[in-house]
Amino acid sequence: MTQRLTGIVTPLLTPFNDDFSVADDLYTDHARQCLADGVHYLSPFGTTSEALSHSVAERMRLVELLVQSGAARADQLMPGTGLCNLEETAALSRHAVELGCRAVMTLPPFFFVGASDEGLYRYFSLLIEKVGSDALTICLYHIPQYAGIGFTPALAARLNEAFPEVVTALKDSSGNWENTRAVIEAAPGISVFPGSEGAMLDAMALGGGGCISASCNSNAAGIRRLYDLSRADDAAGAKALQPQIDAHRAAVQAGGLIPGLKALKAQQTGDARWLNLRPPLLPATPDLAAPLADTIWRG
Amino acid sequence: MTQRLTGIVTPLLTPFNDDFSVADDLYTDHARQCLADGVHYLSPFGTTSEALSHSVAERMRLVELLVQSGAARADQLMPGTGLCNLEETAALSRHAVELGCRAVMTLPPFFFVGASDEGLYRYFSLLIEKVGSDALTICLYHIPQYAGIGFTPALAARLNEAFPEVVTALKDSSGNWENTRAVIEAAPGISVFPGSEGAMLDAMALGGGGCISASCNSNAAGIRRLYDLSRADDAAGAKALQPQIDAHRAAVQAGGLIPGLKALKAQQTGDARWLNLRPPLLPATPDLAAPLADTIWRG
Repeated sequence: MTQRLTGIVTPLLTPFNDDFSVADDLYTDHARQCLADGVHYLSPFGTTSEALSHSVAERMRLVELLVQSGAARADQLMPGTGLCNLEETAALSRHAVELGCRAVMTLPPFFFVGASDEGLYRYFSLLIEKVGSDALTICLYHIPQYAGIGFTPALAARLNEAFPEVVTALKDSSGNWENTRAVIEAAPGISVFPGSEGAMLDAMALGGGGCISASCNSNAAGIRRLYDLSRADDAAGAKALQPQIDAHRAAVQAGGLIPGLKALKAQQTGDARWLNLRPPLLPATPDLAAPLADTIWRG
Repeated sequence: MTQRLTGIVTPLLTPFNDDFSVADDLYTDHARQCLADGVHYLSPFGTTSEALSHSVAERMRLVELLVQSGAARADQLMPGTGLCNLEETAALSRHAVELGCRAVMTLPPFFFVGASDEGLYRYFSLLIEKVGSDALTICLYHIPQYAGIGFTPALAARLNEAFPEVVTALKDSSGNWENTRAVIEAAPGISVFPGSEGAMLDAMALGGGGCISASCNSNAAGIRRLYDLSRADDAAGAKALQPQIDAHRAAVQAGGLIPGLKALKAQQTGDARWLNLRPPLLPATPDLAAPLADTIWRG
């Protein structure tokens, strides 16, 4: 049996050159920084990564870049692989598995609004069959406000029961604690990661895995400290630290997540390319950086 | 100046073998049938085509198949090309243009929920630049209930003004007549196609182009008759025919669009492969066919 997936995970920001190609140098630097600051895993191609702005070929190249540059070990990566179609989702997932990635984080086939639990069950069953590897670990990526569809607690439980060595994690980016709790309760075999460190302690108290949070791009050391206190059963210490961590998260959200985080990186690195977002998103503005910089946990 | 895009258009159903690969034989047969029944254009890869279930490579192959098999001339095709990312959307659009297709039908970069008009304007500007061909005609594909985002009348007008030879059509699948009217009024340079023949006459009376409708898969002759009566300014004749056409459309919608249409094709061809839909959609059931068969316009 594979080990349960736990820890804190950065949905890795993607820096762009002025022509909107990926700025490889900034990308690998940022990946190294997140790991040095204490995150357990990196997830290239979460929503914070502007994942859906990338072609399939580009996604494969960037995962390879992270490994081949030495910025991260493959077993520190859990790339996003979920597209609307089975063939390319399977290709990305197989590519990640063959590279030795720890897991893949997979959206449901968005755009198929109104898809039923039964339909999604069949889709994921086919996906697992197509990847065809014992080394595959899937973290279901639940973000219904973007995807239009998601994983009900019952569907998560059914997938885990059918594929207990494969479907073993779920990222809950719904922002709805009742849903997070319902998945943990319905599917004890699944390691649940809230999409914000604000819900991490509550989730871990029930058996959750940690968090996969945009602010692990900017406040990894603080979030790691919070995680470690919880793991050490230091409830008082964790409770005392939480408000400082939440203050930064609030600043990240006020900055519109990606624009604020990119503005902060531009300030920290002195590299204005960090202000670029790919259309249809608009560029970040430097003024967004200060509230984030002011709230980073400094130990 | 290129000629204004007008007519009735089939968002072409995609038949699948039992292993969910495309049933090429049924596909080309169906394309021929729609054209023989009177549609002016075929749009492979609309929502009715289960477009987003296809990989990029498969989409290119199928457009080539339609042309190379002789099922359709390239200038009778307006393939869907819209994905979430610019690179693959440009590649599909360029492929269609190089093949000689009449137009492309392009979704906005769905998943980027909350994208602004300005951001979408920049996205489409880059797309047009990347395709880089005078032969490109874009039909904007507005279906916000699936895509999460869409084209406001002001954005459609702005794109038409900036690219008057390229952005010249819009499919309005919102089902909201007020929106259809608002686009026609805001962007007189754009040929607007409602997503249902129920709104076709009203749209054409204001300068609309025709319709791009799921039921052009099943009732093309009747819809073509309605279109021709309108073109011939036979308002009384068109008005008299409309209820018969609407009765079939209602049956198509009651059958869940794709399942009902595929059940009908299975009955008409005697080929049960037509019942297959790709997960996460569920297979059609034969009982859905009868209400559609009973309401086809027979002249």
